[in-house]
Amino acid sequence: MENKVQEDYKSEILEIIRGNASPGVLRGQLEDYHENDLAEVFPELTVVERQKVCRVLDTDMISDIFEHIDEREAAGYLNEMDIKKAASILSGMETDAVVDVLKMEPKEKRALLIELMDDDARKSVAVIASFDEEEIGSWMTTNCIVIRENLTARQAMGSLVSQAGKNDNISTLFMVTDDHTFYGAMDLRDLLTAPPEAPLEDLIVTSYPYVYGHEAIDDCIEKLKDYSEDSIPVLDNSNRLLGVITSQSIVELVDDEMGEDYAKLAGLTAEEDLKEPLKESMKKRLPWLLILLVLGMLVSSVVGLFENVVSQLPLIMCFQSLILDMAGNVGTQSLAVTIRVLMDESLTVRQKLELVWKEMRIAFSNGVILGVLSFSVIGLYIVFFKGKTFAFAYAVSGCIGLALVLAMLISGAVGTLIPLFFKKIHVDPAVASGPLITTINDLVAVISYYGLSWIFLIEMMHLAG
Amino acid sequence: MENKVQEDYKSEILEIIRGNASPGVLRGQLEDYHENDLAEVFPELTVVERQKVCRVLDTDMISDIFEHIDEREAAGYLNEMDIKKAASILSGMETDAVVDVLKMEPKEKRALLIELMDDDARKSVAVIASFDEEEIGSWMTTNCIVIRENLTARQAMGSLVSQAGKNDNISTLFMVTDDHTFYGAMDLRDLLTAPPEAPLEDLIVTSYPYVYGHEAIDDCIEKLKDYSEDSIPVLDNSNRLLGVITSQSIVELVDDEMGEDYAKLAGLTAEEDLKEPLKESMKKRLPWLLILLVLGMLVSSVVGLFENVVSQLPLIMCFQSLILDMAGNVGTQSLAVTIRVLMDESLTVRQKLELVWKEMRIAFSNGVILGVLSFSVIGLYIVFFKGKTFAFAYAVSGCIGLALVLAMLISGAVGTLIPLFFKKIHVDPAVASGPLITTINDLVAVISYYGLSWIFLIEMMHLAG
Repeated sequence: MENKVQEDYKSEILEIIRGNASPGVLRGQLEDYHENDLAEVFPELTVVERQKVCRVLDTDMISDIFEHIDEREAAGYLNEMDIKKAASILSGMETDAVVDVLKMEPKEKRALLIELMDDDARKSVAVIASFDEEEIGSWMTTNCIVIRENLTARQAMGSLVSQAGKNDNISTLFMVTDDHTFYGAMDLRDLLTAPPEAPLEDLIVTSYPYVYGHEAIDDCIEKLKDYSEDSIPVLDNSNRLLGVITSQSIVELVDDEMGEDYAKLAGLTAEEDLKEPLKESMKKRLPWLLILLVLGMLVSSVVGLFENVVSQLPLIMCFQSLILDMAGNVGTQSLAVTIRVLMDESLTVRQKLELVWKEMRIAFSNGVILGVLSFSVIGLYIVFFKGKTFAFAYAVSGCIGLALVLAMLISGAVGTLIPLFFKKIHVDPAVASGPLITTINDLVAVISYYGLSWIFLIEMMHLAG
Repeated sequence: MENKVQEDYKSEILEIIRGNASPGVLRGQLEDYHENDLAEVFPELTVVERQKVCRVLDTDMISDIFEHIDEREAAGYLNEMDIKKAASILSGMETDAVVDVLKMEPKEKRALLIELMDDDARKSVAVIASFDEEEIGSWMTTNCIVIRENLTARQAMGSLVSQAGKNDNISTLFMVTDDHTFYGAMDLRDLLTAPPEAPLEDLIVTSYPYVYGHEAIDDCIEKLKDYSEDSIPVLDNSNRLLGVITSQSIVELVDDEMGEDYAKLAGLTAEEDLKEPLKESMKKRLPWLLILLVLGMLVSSVVGLFENVVSQLPLIMCFQSLILDMAGNVGTQSLAVTIRVLMDESLTVRQKLELVWKEMRIAFSNGVILGVLSFSVIGLYIVFFKGKTFAFAYAVSGCIGLALVLAMLISGAVGTLIPLFFKKIHVDPAVASGPLITTINDLVAVISYYGLSWIFLIEMMHLAG
């Protein structure tokens, strides 16, 4: 159903653009569609058709359309047109989107575009570009309604209407004092229903939430989510109002942030997209693979210490992969749970200890279930497929079961403690934990399995053969 | 910085509530805070203090606060108060939040609460409760402004103001015909700046995006994200307007959806939270571990086929874990990339083939780099730490290098093809792919490594011993 709806609009729009309607009629028809639907059609148009659309629609509408186009493509389309037109389209876009598009332009062209943009837009771009990518300020827009705190409802309404032509983010109004210090916020709803002569003071929420532009995104994204407001004000270090973070930006931020963690859990240094060149993708994957290779060699050299055990009892090496895989799986489960818990909540020491304790209990309980299962099934397998005696088979499968419980218990603990540790020393736990956990768990699994086999099977029961 | 801000508000609010201010003063002071900050304080209050707050604030404000409280806790707090008061608080909340809280109440109490709610709220709850959890309709709210399409700007403004007391979602207005069929939408901004006698018709976007309540969330979440609107209308199958999906709901949906995929990638059947009982957590993890155990036994029995090779050349088994781990890592990387690509875009067959081809090229290129590295380093290791000849050492490390390239190449392909296949047969690729990919990759790695070793080292070079 989704595709049906989308496709319909898309082909309707294409038909309209490719038809012979006069510019006035064409504009009227296109204005009935949502900017995002128009944006989706852009890649399918020819250069001439795109120019036709951009000539017909008014600049505000084109700016809105460009906000829905990927920055790389948007830069390409802007290059197709007159630079003054391009600058005026940029002037009408949300400031954070403008900054993204400008990054795609070569340096000289960028400088020229900025110079041709209107004054307000140029100033806003400068403010946003001054923030680091990791700071929340780089995601703000200056599209918001700002009014003085000491007005009446009627005056405020007048001020709103005069700003509404340029700023379409009007459901929350922000109040500032005469030196632009943030004072509070109010719902437009409350203004609409207030008596015209009422002073604003009574309607303003003075302890409205805000963020500082220099706060790290990671530190404030949960807070922004929790407030579930359409826009949250962004202040500079002197508490002056710079702009707002809209809920649309929050959607993108959440999507990005989760996507990054997701990618990191899978051993990628950053998210990839389909159009990225091969070399870029390789670069994102190779660092982890190299680290894992080195760590894997470490594990191999530890396995090498047990070469003697294996040469006496080659059968036991068949089950090495089973124990290593299970330890790895348990470690990954604990890691994923811990990272999510760390993301959502600011934990007390007590809660952290509880988390570790809980993960260990889960790993142990699951380990016992799987250990008992392995003990029974693998014993039978060795008897019937490898033709060994029951005593020998169950001695071996006993070692496997025990090693499994031990390896899973320790993996659960390691999978929780390592990310907690990295969080503590302010290293991103999603990046650093994976390889370390895998390695420690492999080592634990190898040592417990071959260690147990060596002690029980060779030293105590003399089963070598 | 983030914590500083949060903590300040929290302790300020606690101080106010615990002070001796008269109810009027207390209300004035509390109304200056954001509902979310007040909600954060609730768990730290005693029952008596919570009752004091709920007596002092007006019901609308309490409803807003309850929207920011976790549904389980909210149900608990409602149980502390008079049932009529509880019902009136529910009546003022967003409909999707009400449904969530009601689910936490025992059946009889729930029926009673619904009966005591006001008419509109009761009807809305019934509509939303009629949708399945997987359908987008279960996330909508009836908090939106609905006006007739044939009014003038002045009439529309009047209609808006009369609805604004109850509905605070006013930045987009939705137009319906007289049988409540969805007609279009307009920005409040355009209404505010329009001449009073202008007919609405010219301001309405008639091809505004919408979703049907019965659409699956997975199918329409990307669309909702792309439109980046504050609210998207939800229609029933006869195109009547039922309510809207707000951008706040979209934030939650994106968070949930990504969280689920993330959990599945890590081998959990669903997301967990800290407060969940041990048994619940075990249940979410055990299914995958059991499947992985069975598949691991399969791999072990294949390794068992090479017992003879290992007994002749015990050294080679040291590097089994290295090759299996690397194949696993490459497979996970490809899986993660593929799942994200499948989530974001509707791919053509051509694009899918390109994705597979690209993943294979990445895996092969990285494989060659790592293979050459392993060949050189492991050769030296065998010479110096295991005391073998150069010829022997480099024969073994040659097998390792070759097996690594082969295993990584195939893992890259498998890690892409399996999720594409599951998507094709409409099975969630994030759930089903992991274990299957791990198993296939383990098998490929084992067979190529021991197979190559057997052919080259034992059959051709007679290095056994």
